Parts: sequence; C-alpha cells; structure tokens
Amino acid sequence: VLDERVAGTLFSEVTAITETASGTFSAEIHPNWTIGGKPNGGYLLAVLGRAATTVGHHTHVLATSAHYLSAPQPGPVVIHTELLRGGRSASQVRATLVQGETSCVEALVTAGELDPDAQPYWSAGVPVRDFADFDKSVRVPAQTPVGIEVLIMDEVDLRLDPAVLNFAFGAPSGAGELRGWLALGGNEDFDPCSLLYAVDAFPPATFEIAPTGWVPTLELTAYVRALPAPGPLKVLQQARLIEGQKVDEACFVWDSRDRLVAQATQLAGIRLG
Amino acid sequence: VLDERVAGTLFSEVTAITETASGTFSAEIHPNWTIGGKPNGGYLLAVLGRAATTVGHHTHVLATSAHYLSAPQPGPVVIHTELLRGGRSASQVRATLVQGETSCVEALVTAGELDPDAQPYWSAGVPVRDFADFDKSVRVPAQTPVGIEVLIMDEVDLRLDPAVLNFAFGAPSGAGELRGWLALGGNEDFDPCSLLYAVDAFPPATFEIAPTGWVPTLELTAYVRALPAPGPLKVLQQARLIEGQKVDEACFVWDSRDRLVAQATQLAGIRLG
Repeated sequence: VLDERVAGTLFSEVTAITETASGTFSAEIHPNWTIGGKPNGGYLLAVLGRAATTVGHHTHVLATSAHYLSAPQPGPVVIHTELLRGGRSASQVRATLVQGETSCVEALVTAGELDPDAQPYWSAGVPVRDFADFDKSVRVPAQTPVGIEVLIMDEVDLRLDPAVLNFAFGAPSGAGELRGWLALGGNEDFDPCSLLYAVDAFPPATFEIAPTGWVPTLELTAYVRALPAPGPLKVLQQARLIEGQKVDEACFVWDSRDRLVAQATQLAGIRLG
Repeated sequence: VLDERVAGTLFSEVTAITETASGTFSAEIHPNWTIGGKPNGGYLLAVLGRAATTVGHHTHVLATSAHYLSAPQPGPVVIHTELLRGGRSASQVRATLVQGETSCVEALVTAGELDPDAQPYWSAGVPVRDFADFDKSVRVPAQTPVGIEVLIMDEVDLRLDPAVLNFAFGAPSGAGELRGWLALGGNEDFDPCSLLYAVDAFPPATFEIAPTGWVPTLELTAYVRALPAPGPLKVLQQARLIEGQKVDEACFVWDSRDRLVAQATQLAGIRLG
C-alpha cells in the first residue's frame, strides 16, 4: 500500500510531450520533480526517452546515455531529435533538451523491442542483496534536516531499507550503498521510459560515506533489460570511487518478480576528495 | 618486457586526426586494429575522444558515451564535432564518425582537467582481484581456433591471467570474468585517450560462460578517473546479465600504481539467451 502522502502528480503527465514539428517536441518540466529546485536528471532523461521512442521505429529504450550541460528551470522546454539510424532491430536517436537558447541535456538513445517472454540466460554477475519489506522500509521525506527541499520525494514513494539509514543518525556506515523501494503515484506501473527515472531516483549512495550537498550528475547511462512487471521496484545504488571531486555510482533495479529490469552508471560531481 | 611479436603500429599513429575545417577532422582507420575485419569499438571511441579534446577547451576525457550505428571499414573517415557547452571546469562535445554518407559512431564527451596529484578519497566500491604477474600471463593470439582473425592482438600485448583461460580448453568456468594485462606497442604509455581503447580491448567476458561469435558493442560508456602512470594496465572485464540476446559488461582498469584509472560499461549483442 502506497503512503497516503504521495502528492499525486502522475509520471505520465509530468513527462508528456507534444510534437510541434517533425522531430521537435514541447514539454513542461514540473516544479515538484526537483531537488533543491533543480529537476531530477533521470526525470529529464525519461522525457528525452519518450521523444526518442516517438521518433524512432521502436517502442522501448534499450540503452541511453545522457550528458548534463546545464540544469533547466521548471517550465517549458523544447526537445530536438534526430534519427541517426533506423534499422530493422534498433533505432538510434539523438535527443536534446533545450530551454530558451540553452542546451540543457543531450542524450543518445538506442531503442528496440523487448520481448515480454524473454528469460535470463545467465545472471551470475548481478549483485544479490536482501531487502527489508516495502512496509518495513522508511519513506524519504521532502523536507530534510540539511536544508535542501527535495520536493520530488512527495511525488513518489521512495523507501530506504532501515539497514542503510545510518547516515540519517549522523553515523554513515562507510559502505557507500543504499537500497530500498520505489513506486509511482496514482498506481502507475513502470515501463522502460519510467525506468530511466528509477535509475536516478535514489539519494546519492555517498550519503552512507560522508555528508555532502547536492551531487550533480554529469553523465548517466541506463540499460533497460526487461519489461517490468507491475508493482514497486527494488533499487540498489552503489558508490565505487570518489576521487578528484567526482564519484561514480552504479544502480541495479529489480521488479516484483525479482527480475533485473534496469541498470545504470553515473558520474557526478561531489564536494569530497 | 613486451612480447617481441607486437607488430608495432603506434597507437598515437592509428588514432591521428587532421583538422580539415573548423571542428571537422579526417582520420584513417587502420586495417590491423580490427576483429574479423571490423574496427575495435574502443579504438574508434579513442579517435572521437581525440577530436573532442581538440575542439573543447579541456585536455582530458572524463566521461564519454558512444552509440555504435554501423561498423566502418578500415580506411578514411571524417569526424564532425560540435561544442555543446564550453564551461570553466568542463567542455562537452558531440563527435560523430562518418564514412562516406554513413554515420558509424556517435559519442558525447565531457572533458576536463585531471589533477596529476589527486588521490582516492574513498574506493571501497571498487572490485579487488589478484592478478597473475604480467610475465606469467598468456598473450592472446591474433589467429584463433574459432576462425575469426583478431588482427588487433598483434598490435598490442594483451595477456590473460591463466586462471581465466578455462574457455581456451573448452571448459568455461561460468564466472563470466576475464582479467589480465594490456600494453601498447612502441613503448607508448597510456593517456586518457588510449584508456578509451583499454576499456574495450579485452575479449568478451562471456568467453568464460559459453562460446559465441562476435559480440558487437551497441553502447559503450567510459569514465577516466586518473592520469595513468607509465607501464602496462591491469584490466578486469565482467559480464553481469545475458538476456534477450544482449549482454552488459563492466570493465575496471588499474595502472602500475594499482590506481583505478578507468571504468566502463557496455551493452552488446550476443547469440545466447
């Protein structure tokens, strides 16, 4: 059962796009899908993914890579797309999110068709974790003691396993890992497009290393591996290396069947090291 | 000591670019830097990285993401670049490798300046492996029993730890992991640009799962984390999930000081699952 306090913007609505010319779309970045006033990077990537799969000949994002140029303000944006290659099994599209004269995010997207009946052939390389139950996990609030308003947390139901909440008591474990659950409001189920948000939805895994301010994403790559079953997702977010004021994080996302449905890496700036 | 059979094309030569117009470059894809006649994907990305750091205001590739559209033939190619954003701390560039009328690879590049004196602040998320010594590791030959000519193996000195050679005896371990060493010919040391080749240099980690043919890269993302010290690199290549005829692999690269200098993920097609 979702927390009753989920404010209720629909993911499908806040990522809606309108084609205004061939390959050009308008969209409206919602002010609530933000961290300290800046739109979540995975949310922006989902909007670009929606445009890319409209322009290409294929339904599902399989792989996408975004470089973040400049954070847009909430409000109207334009998405320019170019079909780089339309093949039989995959479409490859460039999509750029622009606000005014400023390019904010550019992404490359390889789209294809995921087979709903596909099964893992080999998955021994995927990390295995125990997750506390959804009902036993702790919802992340929009109002945080560190002073940043994370409004997006009121729009989704994001819960952390109590075992990774050490940072909240001022005693990060040092493991550099967060895990928990993610559900959308309005009973919306996940699809390949909203999985692009899921891989960037969690707080920085560095919270379990040392306190920092905002950790802005420079690059985010996501692979969608299977069509997600209905229900909340399990998410594992792992830091690997902090050096030269950069951190890389890996993300693994499982659906309610415990199938790995998405995975991602990102490089972000951080005020450590 | 490098194997005397390293044929001796220089990496700096086979990735050389010439600016023919503002932001446009010509290059020559070398016929020996190929697997079954197709250029190595990391080699192509290194050429794009070279162009991107020439156009931008920053020296070192920090993060790059490439989507592979169509394999070029060895021979002349043209690289088109566009500076998406030239900031104080980073330049962000789009680079496209074109042959004739065909776009072959498009990459986004975030470049900056790596500090030679930076030290890891936290690195507990990086995998740890024992590597057999360089001299005790086994060089991968260009002529393989499976019939594919991997000419690139004559141009570099790539050695596998004997512990991961089970596949060569027809008995893959199932671990989905390869590790070993990489050195360039002509005593050339690695730099951020050649690290983009290093993260895609190894055979597919799936060799230690099941025999397959060519595993073509669809998407490759690389992060360069430090300036590499002189000497051969240690490389760890790991498969994670094979499903729906796709496999994702992660790569970790250490220099002679045992510092993590690069890491990467790729999504590739595979005739399994």
